[in-house]
Amino acid sequence: MKTEQPYLLTPGPITTTLSVKQAMLQDWGSWDGDFRAMTAQLCQRLVELIDGEDSHVCVPMQGSGTFAVEATLATLVPKDGKLLILMNGAYGQRMGKIMDYLGREYVALDKGDYEPPRAVEVEAMLAADPAITHVAVVHCETSSGILNPVEEIAEVVARQGRRLIIDSMSAFGAVPISAKRVQFDALISSANKCFEGVPGFGFSLIRQSALEASKGNAHSLSMDLLDQWQYLAKTGQWRYTPPTHVVAAFLQALKEHAEEGGIAGRHARYQRNQQRLVAGMRQLGFETLLSDEWLSPIIITFFSPGHDNFDFQAFYDRMKARGFIIYPGKLTEAESFRLGCIGQLYDEQIDAVLAAVEAVLADMKVADGTPAHALEAVPA
Amino acid sequence: MKTEQPYLLTPGPITTTLSVKQAMLQDWGSWDGDFRAMTAQLCQRLVELIDGEDSHVCVPMQGSGTFAVEATLATLVPKDGKLLILMNGAYGQRMGKIMDYLGREYVALDKGDYEPPRAVEVEAMLAADPAITHVAVVHCETSSGILNPVEEIAEVVARQGRRLIIDSMSAFGAVPISAKRVQFDALISSANKCFEGVPGFGFSLIRQSALEASKGNAHSLSMDLLDQWQYLAKTGQWRYTPPTHVVAAFLQALKEHAEEGGIAGRHARYQRNQQRLVAGMRQLGFETLLSDEWLSPIIITFFSPGHDNFDFQAFYDRMKARGFIIYPGKLTEAESFRLGCIGQLYDEQIDAVLAAVEAVLADMKVADGTPAHALEAVPA
Repeated sequence: MKTEQPYLLTPGPITTTLSVKQAMLQDWGSWDGDFRAMTAQLCQRLVELIDGEDSHVCVPMQGSGTFAVEATLATLVPKDGKLLILMNGAYGQRMGKIMDYLGREYVALDKGDYEPPRAVEVEAMLAADPAITHVAVVHCETSSGILNPVEEIAEVVARQGRRLIIDSMSAFGAVPISAKRVQFDALISSANKCFEGVPGFGFSLIRQSALEASKGNAHSLSMDLLDQWQYLAKTGQWRYTPPTHVVAAFLQALKEHAEEGGIAGRHARYQRNQQRLVAGMRQLGFETLLSDEWLSPIIITFFSPGHDNFDFQAFYDRMKARGFIIYPGKLTEAESFRLGCIGQLYDEQIDAVLAAVEAVLADMKVADGTPAHALEAVPA
Repeated sequence: MKTEQPYLLTPGPITTTLSVKQAMLQDWGSWDGDFRAMTAQLCQRLVELIDGEDSHVCVPMQGSGTFAVEATLATLVPKDGKLLILMNGAYGQRMGKIMDYLGREYVALDKGDYEPPRAVEVEAMLAADPAITHVAVVHCETSSGILNPVEEIAEVVARQGRRLIIDSMSAFGAVPISAKRVQFDALISSANKCFEGVPGFGFSLIRQSALEASKGNAHSLSMDLLDQWQYLAKTGQWRYTPPTHVVAAFLQALKEHAEEGGIAGRHARYQRNQQRLVAGMRQLGFETLLSDEWLSPIIITFFSPGHDNFDFQAFYDRMKARGFIIYPGKLTEAESFRLGCIGQLYDEQIDAVLAAVEAVLADMKVADGTPAHALEAVPA
């Protein structure tokens, strides 16, 4: 579907279809049966997408994805528990900040800006510290765009008898994961990433037995996922006013997700976007932060050109004038920017992005995208 | 503006204009300058509406209104503070629950289902307990629909040198309040009540000096209003993904609010809705819970008819079939239901509601709205 507005090449909010937005042209009573049926449908569909019908329940949470992450950590990691956080970017670090507020114990395996945490390192830490009860990992760490090796990590966490929490904010919906093959207690995501809904709520898909055992853990009334789930199970309603229009948009987005072939179909389109973007940008002289093995189909970090005439804000403004909103980088050691592959982007838009980058470099009198110095690529 | 869908006679979400909903037919990048300008405009306008330009700042908060209440209590009442909660319904009680989660000290002046807290009682409690640092009151307690006497309470709280937090969720936007005449440290409200936006965020209008003094108070990263405000001041952005479409709808709603004459204009229409609804329902034999002095222009509680044929769910379903979604009661001692006066309701809709109630009573073979037994009316 066509759109006149700038395309969002960001990790979310992303460009949605007009039909998703049009689903918001109605008001719902949050107490009413029609809306309760919408919530039930949403929860059922999300549990199905992880093959979790026999094991997991869906607990929606108002607010941004970070609210859902905080709510999940606070609800599942008990006050006397200990969390191992696998960090390689801003979202892992944010989990540490959340734990600081909660005043609960944690340790980090901090891999810096873009190195992946590996199973062997996780296993060593778990073996050495029996006090660790839970492990948290970011599925796609959008700081760098890396797709972390969640499956190999899940295996060692299970083998060591600990419990896994996956922040799959920007991956779920486009990267397949099955609760029947991968053991996790919670997988957290949000409305406005790969499902291509609009922002306003997140959700946590939680192992029912773990949720039932969480009484007394939560630090906050609003973010108590056990209370939220019990009320939902009893009444069909969210405890406090849900973002009704955003929920309606999400149901339409779920319909369109299924029509595209579900997770597999969405993955194929995003993967194609990523491959065409990377190939085209490399032709223009740009280098990716990550080697191909670690690139996600979600978002890609490129080093900024080393040319003296290059300035990120000028590049951003000129790309926006041509209809594309790009995303700044988040590396501490080198200048970079990011291009997202998710949302309503197809071959036509990817071609147009590449043409716009080429034209903007010419406008700015930057010869090509070659960086001044690239960091060492991530080892395979 | 006409709508085909059922009208919401609830305390929110309410029926919004089509133009408010149409403002959501676009996607925004939350990092982009266009959206930052929208946030700045929203905050500036809300501060103006309380005459707070010299004293207060606006801190928006993702989630439902309860999130904004919890965030405000946690940010402003220090860990060694003590809160006096003025309770006369579910929303006051909810503040007590929040304090239980926070593990911070509080006492309640609990007036039961519908009696107003009076200044003289508050003053006596404050005088007797110097440990109390803060007082919290619900402006319009929608459990009963009572408009609490916030101004007389503010006066004694200020005289006793304590700090006032007002939950004005369902009143702000239609009930005037000026920070120049009424002393309060925070006034909390949300997008989807009297401003007639759609649900997805709340906001707290906080005395800047009190906010600046709140470092270390918050229990939660997501709900730390000091951190949210400092980041907003520095970058123009919300810390975590805002509900961009809901914010766009709110800006359109603010424009329409101003076009209606701002708070005074909105108050006049809601007041007229309330008076016409009450008069019409009384003609049909219904009795209000509250005497006229305490009725708010927001929502009204009516006793359910005493007739044996009356059943709330059947009444609800039949009203819905006629295009009106009504609201259940929340009294502990008597059967009741509520009708809201807020949202896109004008004379035409009020007339239609009254005609629908009359027709539904006839359908249900309920002679009229006379209750089996009314509670004693609230003393003047």
